[in-house]
Amino acid sequence: MGDTVKYLLSEERTPKAWYNLVADLPVPPPPPLHPGTLQPLGPSDLAPLFPMEIILQEVSTERWIDIPEPVREIYRLWRPSPLIRARRLEKALDTPAKIFFKYEGVSPAGSHKPNTSVAQAFYNQQAGVKRLTTETGAGQWGSSLAFAGSLFGLEVEIYMVKISYQQKPYRRALMETYGATCIPSPSPLTNSGRAILAATPESSGSLGIAISEAVEMAAQRDDTKYALGSVLNHVLLHQTIIGEEAMLQLADAGAAPDVVIGCAGGGSNFAGIAFPFLREKLAGRCSARVIAVEPTACPTMTKGRYAYDFGDTAHLTPLVKMHTLGSTFMPPGFHAGGLRYHGMAPLVSHVIEQGLVEPRAYAQTECFSAAVQLARAEGIVAAPESSHAVRAAIDEALRCKASGKSETILFNLSGHGHFDMQAYTDFFAGSLKDVAFDRAALDKALAELPKVPA
Amino acid sequence: MGDTVKYLLSEERTPKAWYNLVADLPVPPPPPLHPGTLQPLGPSDLAPLFPMEIILQEVSTERWIDIPEPVREIYRLWRPSPLIRARRLEKALDTPAKIFFKYEGVSPAGSHKPNTSVAQAFYNQQAGVKRLTTETGAGQWGSSLAFAGSLFGLEVEIYMVKISYQQKPYRRALMETYGATCIPSPSPLTNSGRAILAATPESSGSLGIAISEAVEMAAQRDDTKYALGSVLNHVLLHQTIIGEEAMLQLADAGAAPDVVIGCAGGGSNFAGIAFPFLREKLAGRCSARVIAVEPTACPTMTKGRYAYDFGDTAHLTPLVKMHTLGSTFMPPGFHAGGLRYHGMAPLVSHVIEQGLVEPRAYAQTECFSAAVQLARAEGIVAAPESSHAVRAAIDEALRCKASGKSETILFNLSGHGHFDMQAYTDFFAGSLKDVAFDRAALDKALAELPKVPA
Repeated sequence: MGDTVKYLLSEERTPKAWYNLVADLPVPPPPPLHPGTLQPLGPSDLAPLFPMEIILQEVSTERWIDIPEPVREIYRLWRPSPLIRARRLEKALDTPAKIFFKYEGVSPAGSHKPNTSVAQAFYNQQAGVKRLTTETGAGQWGSSLAFAGSLFGLEVEIYMVKISYQQKPYRRALMETYGATCIPSPSPLTNSGRAILAATPESSGSLGIAISEAVEMAAQRDDTKYALGSVLNHVLLHQTIIGEEAMLQLADAGAAPDVVIGCAGGGSNFAGIAFPFLREKLAGRCSARVIAVEPTACPTMTKGRYAYDFGDTAHLTPLVKMHTLGSTFMPPGFHAGGLRYHGMAPLVSHVIEQGLVEPRAYAQTECFSAAVQLARAEGIVAAPESSHAVRAAIDEALRCKASGKSETILFNLSGHGHFDMQAYTDFFAGSLKDVAFDRAALDKALAELPKVPA
Repeated sequence: MGDTVKYLLSEERTPKAWYNLVADLPVPPPPPLHPGTLQPLGPSDLAPLFPMEIILQEVSTERWIDIPEPVREIYRLWRPSPLIRARRLEKALDTPAKIFFKYEGVSPAGSHKPNTSVAQAFYNQQAGVKRLTTETGAGQWGSSLAFAGSLFGLEVEIYMVKISYQQKPYRRALMETYGATCIPSPSPLTNSGRAILAATPESSGSLGIAISEAVEMAAQRDDTKYALGSVLNHVLLHQTIIGEEAMLQLADAGAAPDVVIGCAGGGSNFAGIAFPFLREKLAGRCSARVIAVEPTACPTMTKGRYAYDFGDTAHLTPLVKMHTLGSTFMPPGFHAGGLRYHGMAPLVSHVIEQGLVEPRAYAQTECFSAAVQLARAEGIVAAPESSHAVRAAIDEALRCKASGKSETILFNLSGHGHFDMQAYTDFFAGSLKDVAFDRAALDKALAELPKVPA
């Protein structure tokens, strides 16, 4: 024994810049379109929602963007996050594969989300913004923005998908502990919310509806901006700190990945671990397969269409080209709330289209089964979202076992499941069921996609 | 800014031995007594409950005890835990004091408890034990032993205080995720449990009762031993890794403590942070005040008697000399379940009697108020138990502000509160009340203390 299991990085070696994949893409991603004119969006179109520094990052083609010192100072509370060699899991699986995971659950909010919430809060504070609105599903993003807002003295107002608001009171308590206000969505406070409530008073909400509400509130007040926890380029950019650290830590372990895995709901933690390795892959310095994992119940990448669509239900957002199930598609209830979104980050969709990334889908019970195996071997209880990456990593390790190959597998464990233990209780009780995918609902939603001239 | 906020340690500098304060005490602590003969206990008296290696640690007078490599290997998953300079909290308090905290919430179970559960599971496995029994209150200890048991292939059976079993389903789910069995106590499985249920069928349980049940079950089977999460010398010993690391990390920060603070229920996290500094204090190399903080609702150190008493309700354990409210004292319900125990570690009691440690008591609302202040400044949400240490640290910082003194304050943040968010919800709703201390109940319980000849 006595082998190293955890890799950190010294302060001096911690990455000082975020990586922008757009700079290295052989084919540029399609531009976002104005929802009214259907013309490519200009920076000023986004100004009601975001401060200029964030808009510039959203459209940037620079390869590296410096992480401001006040952001790095807060990152230091938990970053660099550990890279862990899962030796006990390897042994339990009896695989020749080497399994490494990057553990983002060490952040104060328990997930990777503060990597961007801290950056967004900083840029908003610098721009004189007093108040941020946002949406949250399972609550990882909401609690992360609440955390960041408290550090930068910003008011934070969070529209939480109603079913999660009711089912996850502890997440709500965490947001309130950080001083944020949490509102069940759909709410009577916005036009978007009132319209939904008028049509379906019993609506349990969706991320698409909550986004509409948060965007509407932000657009109304000069001192208020909107913050998004995934999907957009600048959010993915901020998450690349994960992959940049992992690359240095893997090098310290004397390893290079053959497989890189992340779960993908909006796509930000996946992009965070994957994009730095895609850069190396594009430059011919890395030959890793890169796998994005989603739930079979909300199979955006594996069953959706690559098309222009709205990010929200009320169609207040720009149109972006992405893998989508249609903005009117209502994902069924399942435990990985963070993966319950109709679309996928445009940049992630683009690299899938370019053949750089393999999408894969799993049902939830096989993911929880993998997460329990990880917990009993390595002690860490994964969030339901992250359990999808665990499942894929275990399957890749079992493939290595079958073929006798000693590959190196890297996956991102994006957050801990301490706020999601009800899902584990249900899993052990046998009451956790896999949700059948509704093909008819998909066809209906896809038929309602906006018509955009080629 | 750009100042360091987090201190770690390189692998090479991580402490390789636990520190045994008994070796340096000017006055030896009073011995434990056999509950039948009232004579000092011999190692063989403990053999039904513990493996010999642990018994030898329990009675050891050696200064340093090597941490076995398989234990260190698991420690590396989260250790060294970070020492954090709470610069934002200092700023929020406008104090000249320097506040540092050691953060034990980074362990897989979210608290300091795995420092000893991993060691205990290792020694039991080495001794050929197949099954461990234990008790748990709030669930921090139970989940930590479940975690350790899963890594060493031991069955773990946990008697959980019934009210916590009902109120904290997520903690139970965590134990089950690690493969342990969780039984509400009092249970019909043991003589102790049946006796309580016969007398008070509606009993919501207590740590003292749960200990009786776990001890009784362990004594019945040769392949089964008992594990305790606090109070005993060997448990405190294993926790000294906290203070040893903190001392090195503080030196890296160029600081030496003027005040060292820990909360104390059974006393193990307090001993963990404090005992290494007490060694330095006894050697004249440190002049820090050392403060142990408890709840006013269960004021063992500040209102209990220093006397021989049983560790459990059914009087199956040895008699130890400690600050006690009497083993028949039933602490009222409050949120810091880990501080809800009638006694205090004999070694902690002894150093209080020797004048080396100041005890202090706080009511729960003032502790939650301090924890919210910490969360909004530093992002970390403290467990209800740990919030007592936060309150004391803030009060010491405010004392420094009043006197203009730039002292260095070190406190142990023994765990995160992610499993205890109901307490925060109650606090914000105003439904969290301070519990009046029941003087008559104390007098009655003290009158029932066992009679031990001087």
